[in-house]
Amino acid sequence: MTLPRDYRGQTCALSRSMEIVGERWTLLILRDAFYGVRRFGEFAAHLAVPRAVLTDRLATLVEAGVLDRRPEPGTGRREVYVLTPKGIALWPAVRALTAWGEEFYAAEGGPRRVFRHVGDEAPIDAGGRCTGCGTAVPVEDVLVTPGPGLAPSAEGSAGGSAEDPGKGSAGPSAGPSAEASDPVTAALARPHRLLTPLISRPRPPHPITAPSGRPTRGPQR
Amino acid sequence: MTLPRDYRGQTCALSRSMEIVGERWTLLILRDAFYGVRRFGEFAAHLAVPRAVLTDRLATLVEAGVLDRRPEPGTGRREVYVLTPKGIALWPAVRALTAWGEEFYAAEGGPRRVFRHVGDEAPIDAGGRCTGCGTAVPVEDVLVTPGPGLAPSAEGSAGGSAEDPGKGSAGPSAGPSAEASDPVTAALARPHRLLTPLISRPRPPHPITAPSGRPTRGPQR
Repeated sequence: MTLPRDYRGQTCALSRSMEIVGERWTLLILRDAFYGVRRFGEFAAHLAVPRAVLTDRLATLVEAGVLDRRPEPGTGRREVYVLTPKGIALWPAVRALTAWGEEFYAAEGGPRRVFRHVGDEAPIDAGGRCTGCGTAVPVEDVLVTPGPGLAPSAEGSAGGSAEDPGKGSAGPSAGPSAEASDPVTAALARPHRLLTPLISRPRPPHPITAPSGRPTRGPQR
Repeated sequence: MTLPRDYRGQTCALSRSMEIVGERWTLLILRDAFYGVRRFGEFAAHLAVPRAVLTDRLATLVEAGVLDRRPEPGTGRREVYVLTPKGIALWPAVRALTAWGEEFYAAEGGPRRVFRHVGDEAPIDAGGRCTGCGTAVPVEDVLVTPGPGLAPSAEGSAGGSAEDPGKGSAGPSAGPSAEASDPVTAALARPHRLLTPLISRPRPPHPITAPSGRPTRGPQR
């Protein structure tokens, strides 16, 4: 559909990979999925990606079997996007590209995110091994934690608001005031285990009123 | 220059990486550079990338310090493109994306390229370690070798001509006749050590005639 025709003819492995993830937003969407972002609005707010582009990229990833679109557990209404095993297999590529960026384009204070082994909280090296115990760390045992590049001294604002300064209409100089508008950035100010949901289910806009004689569904989970 | 403006505002490591390599041709160009492709015409013929696009992507990679543009050794005339240390540091990302493609989009007969450790010729696993001796193999000790997906039984043609069937005007059904037009594909039908030049200096169109009393430069290298 949106894949370029002139790519279809190429059959090498990297060409095939780039058919799926070779679009600049796609790997950022996947990175957020590894962080545990699951809802359309959260991807949109965190990445500042135009909603039409996000819709298209998510559809491509679902079609390719990289993401699964499913009802949100416990609600049955909202749709969430969750990495499939095929998507999770992209972790070494996402990690390697992120590590390269941290090595050559570090923020002033250092890396903004540090991946750690959940067992001993030691940083994970460029090859994906724990610098503490030497284990090749599987993605589900990786913690994403704030790095020194995210500290107030480096960025002039608390929390993670500076990660995507271009987002929204406020522009790059928005500063701390933009923080509240992006729950993903705020949530990533604390260590978080990859692949687990980053943001708990939002409260409904109005309190749930139980029909007489039927329990509400909310407290059951 | 050609980078999208709306990316500049993002400061996370992966965003920065995608500014440089987040374009579908770019990683294919870099893969070829790892294979030892160095000349403009060889990239163009192997990838079937439009020359204007190739010019633009090479310029971006040189500007970013990922490739170095330099005179060809021994001639001082032709320009060649060679990976810098910053570019070589992208190897884990290129390897990971290639491995993902081989896992989920294998050719009929299996992988078309197999990376092996130059020491014992055992295949390298998805984590970049030699399956024979367990060494984390540095890129300069990697052999790219033809895999079963490249065999005549799988593709119906000898050599590597089926790798980029979309190239040229002959289209995907060009078959073996396209082989001669692409020296990169032909050279990759044999094992080759990464980062070493893949194709020796082409012969000049006419025999070199040495001015009397001066040796030719050709035989010196």
